[in-house]
Amino acid sequence: MEYAKMAPSQVRQLIREGKITGQTSGMCDGYAQGNLLILPREEAYDFLLFTQRNPKPCPILEVGDMGSRLVKKMATGGDIATDIPRYRLWENGELSGEFTDISHLWRDDYVYFLIGCSFSFEGELLAADVPVRHIEEGRNVPMYLTNIECEPAGMFHGKTVVSMRPMTAEQAIRATSITASMPRVHGAPIHIGDPAKIGIQDLSKPDFGEAVTVKEGEIPVFWCCGVTPQSVVMSARPPIAISHAPGHMFITDVKNTLLKD
Amino acid sequence: MEYAKMAPSQVRQLIREGKITGQTSGMCDGYAQGNLLILPREEAYDFLLFTQRNPKPCPILEVGDMGSRLVKKMATGGDIATDIPRYRLWENGELSGEFTDISHLWRDDYVYFLIGCSFSFEGELLAADVPVRHIEEGRNVPMYLTNIECEPAGMFHGKTVVSMRPMTAEQAIRATSITASMPRVHGAPIHIGDPAKIGIQDLSKPDFGEAVTVKEGEIPVFWCCGVTPQSVVMSARPPIAISHAPGHMFITDVKNTLLKD
Repeated sequence: MEYAKMAPSQVRQLIREGKITGQTSGMCDGYAQGNLLILPREEAYDFLLFTQRNPKPCPILEVGDMGSRLVKKMATGGDIATDIPRYRLWENGELSGEFTDISHLWRDDYVYFLIGCSFSFEGELLAADVPVRHIEEGRNVPMYLTNIECEPAGMFHGKTVVSMRPMTAEQAIRATSITASMPRVHGAPIHIGDPAKIGIQDLSKPDFGEAVTVKEGEIPVFWCCGVTPQSVVMSARPPIAISHAPGHMFITDVKNTLLKD
Repeated sequence: MEYAKMAPSQVRQLIREGKITGQTSGMCDGYAQGNLLILPREEAYDFLLFTQRNPKPCPILEVGDMGSRLVKKMATGGDIATDIPRYRLWENGELSGEFTDISHLWRDDYVYFLIGCSFSFEGELLAADVPVRHIEEGRNVPMYLTNIECEPAGMFHGKTVVSMRPMTAEQAIRATSITASMPRVHGAPIHIGDPAKIGIQDLSKPDFGEAVTVKEGEIPVFWCCGVTPQSVVMSARPPIAISHAPGHMFITDVKNTLLKD
């Protein structure tokens, strides 16, 4: 089964049937994947405001109606409670369980947030001959907790998480230009160069994902990362929240190139 | 007193003292002005979601914390309850009063929404030799209710209001390119050409503002308009809402050119 070439609706069906429970990286080539956060309506206002105030780490692809599991704009017939391979349940900011289906946990007051993912611009970078080292090396992208405070909103606050891709200065300029036109998947880099400036002590020890090689003459380029909402949930400790498990994303029907709108 | 050359903080102070109660058009040259909607927290979630789903008519510049009159990002020391020359009070979707100060109406559960205004891109158009007819003719911009339904969110629904500027096809292409890079002030046009296609029967009879001359060889170019929230309030009839009076805007400390971010 060649998942890379399959249609998003086909792969979502296999996920829904429990036939795919692993990471979605590389599946449905060219289609955008999304990060998930689910909150009760009580906390959803503060989080919606948080995403409005922090669009670079939390670019919204779609927000569900209260109680609705249905994904409308980003995937025809998508069910947010069954179409992700692995979910994480958070109680008071602590991870309390993992599930491959959350139908039994769904509540009438839940609101889902589907958030853009930097995976969507990597194809664009490769097409412009900008290297994506973690793909070259077959690893998960390195992610770091920074000292950059998100702008708080109500109960939600926390530090920005970034992903890092090493490249030459010339490539960094090209990568900035390309990603600046894709604000719905984190947009332009948040920092280029010295990691210490944003509170990162050691590039070889990422807080999430895996380290990659930084070659002679390359500089690290940092983008805001969709793991930020999980870091924020850990800081703000809402009574209950559900996210995707890292790397286990929602695959949309929307092509990455269309996220430039 | 030359308001066009004064700093936004000076003009806001005069408005706060009741020394300016008229329209703000042309004041503080180069600085962005914003549309206002205030709602109780109870209805604010649905409206925040509405703005997220309808970013072209409702591009958010800033959303206040619940109960706070303070403007932070867009204007240092701004007070949303005193710094607008004229406010409108809406009860159950009906206009019930106009005020030059709403301090006495303010409630601890109020949330303000400051929304981008197409006024901000007109300087950019003029700088690129694109005519702005209503400025040439000294009139208010013509605005029309269209048949384009906004995407509903909770209690909020309604039709999109557009502003119109006539120009040649070549100028329309230039204007599209310029405004596409300014998504926080309505972005690219929503329609070019035949008004009937978006439900406008007669360009000479705008629903808001004043008609302008369309010259031989020109086509009408339509942008989403910040009057849409008022149209939506009239449709959705929330128990209470406060807006600015048309043309009586909040003047920010942020230059129009910086709204490209």
